[in-house]
Amino acid sequence: MAQPNLKDRRLEDYGYILEYRTRWSDNDQYAHMNNAIYYHLFDSIVNTYLIEKCGLVPKTSPLIGLVVSSYCQVPSDVLVPFLHRNSSRQFFAPVSFPDVLELGLRVNKLGSSSVSYEVGVFLKGESKPAAVGGYTHVFVGSESRKSTPMAQATREGLSKLLRPSGSNTAKL
Amino acid sequence: MAQPNLKDRRLEDYGYILEYRTRWSDNDQYAHMNNAIYYHLFDSIVNTYLIEKCGLVPKTSPLIGLVVSSYCQVPSDVLVPFLHRNSSRQFFAPVSFPDVLELGLRVNKLGSSSVSYEVGVFLKGESKPAAVGGYTHVFVGSESRKSTPMAQATREGLSKLLRPSGSNTAKL
Amino acid sequence: MAQPNLKDRRLEDYGYILEYRTRWSDNDQYAHMNNAIYYHLFDSIVNTYLIEKCGLVPKTSPLIGLVVSSYCQVPSDVLVPFLHRNSSRQFFAPVSFPDVLELGLRVNKLGSSSVSYEVGVFLKGESKPAAVGGYTHVFVGSESRKSTPMAQATREGLSKLLRPSGSNTAKL
Amino acid sequence: MAQPNLKDRRLEDYGYILEYRTRWSDNDQYAHMNNAIYYHLFDSIVNTYLIEKCGLVPKTSPLIGLVVSSYCQVPSDVLVPFLHRNSSRQFFAPVSFPDVLELGLRVNKLGSSSVSYEVGVFLKGESKPAAVGGYTHVFVGSESRKSTPMAQATREGLSKLLRPSGSNTAKL
Repeated sequence: MAQPNLKDRRLEDYGYILEYRTRWSDNDQYAHMNNAIYYHLFDSIVNTYLIEKCGLVPKTSPLIGLVVSSYCQVPSDVLVPFLHRNSSRQFFAPVSFPDVLELGLRVNKLGSSSVSYEVGVFLKGESKPAAVGGYTHVFVGSESRKSTPMAQATREGLSKLLRPSGSNTAKL
Repeated sequence: MAQPNLKDRRLEDYGYILEYRTRWSDNDQYAHMNNAIYYHLFDSIVNTYLIEKCGLVPKTSPLIGLVVSSYCQVPSDVLVPFLHRNSSRQFFAPVSFPDVLELGLRVNKLGSSSVSYEVGVFLKGESKPAAVGGYTHVFVGSESRKSTPMAQATREGLSKLLRPSGSNTAKL
Repeated sequence: MAQPNLKDRRLEDYGYILEYRTRWSDNDQYAHMNNAIYYHLFDSIVNTYLIEKCGLVPKTSPLIGLVVSSYCQVPSDVLVPFLHRNSSRQFFAPVSFPDVLELGLRVNKLGSSSVSYEVGVFLKGESKPAAVGGYTHVFVGSESRKSTPMAQATREGLSKLLRPSGSNTAKL
Repeated sequence: MAQPNLKDRRLEDYGYILEYRTRWSDNDQYAHMNNAIYYHLFDSIVNTYLIEKCGLVPKTSPLIGLVVSSYCQVPSDVLVPFLHRNSSRQFFAPVSFPDVLELGLRVNKLGSSSVSYEVGVFLKGESKPAAVGGYTHVFVGSESRKSTPMAQATREGLSKLLRPSGSNTAKL
């Protein structure tokens, strides 16, 4: 299946939503949110879901998730007007403190010992994402650090967020 | 040209090197450096190079670089032993405070108004990278935020780091 | 007036409240929120107030606030049980991801060109603070960096949060 | 003994020195290093010393240090010219990426289960500090979280950095 255009992602394409405030230090000296902050937000919604919905207790769980690859993109329809039109606030700087964000989490691929998450970052109240990215977790023993099939509770929790990677609202 | 195997990257594949100390807060509660920190390091070596070698003055330069996509991977030969062997320190946790790192910067693609950087992250003294990633900068007017050809000094500075994306030491 | 005991602070001692989610990277490897994160939260509520209620536009305002001194304390009644009783969750680790926090902001001292803020950090739903701290801003010209009397709108906004430093709910 | 004037601190007043590079994200949108970053640097030199010189292994040591109070100040002789003269680079913005810093660590007070550290932050090559601050660690059992006398190796390591809080080079 073809990779969906990121511009077509909507908040309803994600099964778990959290609202997050930006922080003063998220902005870099160009007065918008630094790109690296997206990854802190990805970590935050993923691990909140694992803790709240999948039984993860980071301090004591026998398995932990290690990030083996990650990515983030500014969708072209945010980027293009951002670069060429600059006609309204949200295109001037997609995200900037003190904006409030809505993060959406979905699972694009679920293996026996690994999972690929996708996170959409939306300015609260905007329909189009400011950024879309994600990462792949490999579950390993917290001491052995060997790849290990995830716990049943983890698998059940994550399967509720699983959607084919090409799917999005526009196609439903 | 085929994408090189990341495991083949060596420090000499990068034209600009900086040593960076890790910080206490880089480690997450799994006692290794959080994945998002790699992106802070990418930003740091890229912008140090732009300032020191390409004449960038972030506060006043008419053009600034915006990150439109970014990625980071743990090379398979670090990951596999990390996951399966766990027989020596560097495979237990690829990077962990208070490790000292060597960062290498190269340019894989240089357009008129955009540039794709690659950064290799090495534990000081190790030959194989702990992680490899990078991002694409689009240069825009600091006020207009419109895509704009980069300044001559920027282009000259970046061209010194340009290497074909498939090239690496092992093949020279 | 004597400095109030920090343990007596309550959310109603603060005139401006914001709810903030913790982030995965806020926890250090001891599995609680790193002390330095409090200062990022202080910055966030102070600058949100200045932007939302005092007309500050960081990118263009002629005056900016520089932090000249800052401090943070764990109140003794949180610390003591934290250290000695360990009998319930909130005393084991005062703040830990994914906790949700309530931040309260007040002004303890308001001069012509400087202001001293105090911030209380509460676990959502808890009556006693997890930490109390703050800092002093000196307003300076954004270019000259010379100490300058604050704008009228700033002064009016900040004066609404002014309370004598010794005052707290318990004494009203 | 009277508290020394912070402006009199020199690098040789500190018994342990580390060089640290600033990072792009250390600068806030006012183009200087955000105040909260000082606390990340304090944590980094303190814990590097505890690990390298006092035998601390954060993941497994039976005792850990909890921060119960912290502070940071810009010395008056940096502040005053910074605010009023603005005649040379280092007074315009005391610390700004990509500056390289030298951090100095000393112990001002050493109890049986607590220690008060002081950290001086210097621009590399400058004689006067850009900032001075520190914090108090209480050592507690990593599981019990009860206050506990520090290990002998910790005490011996820390005692090498102990100097009376009023002492500084200028008075020797």
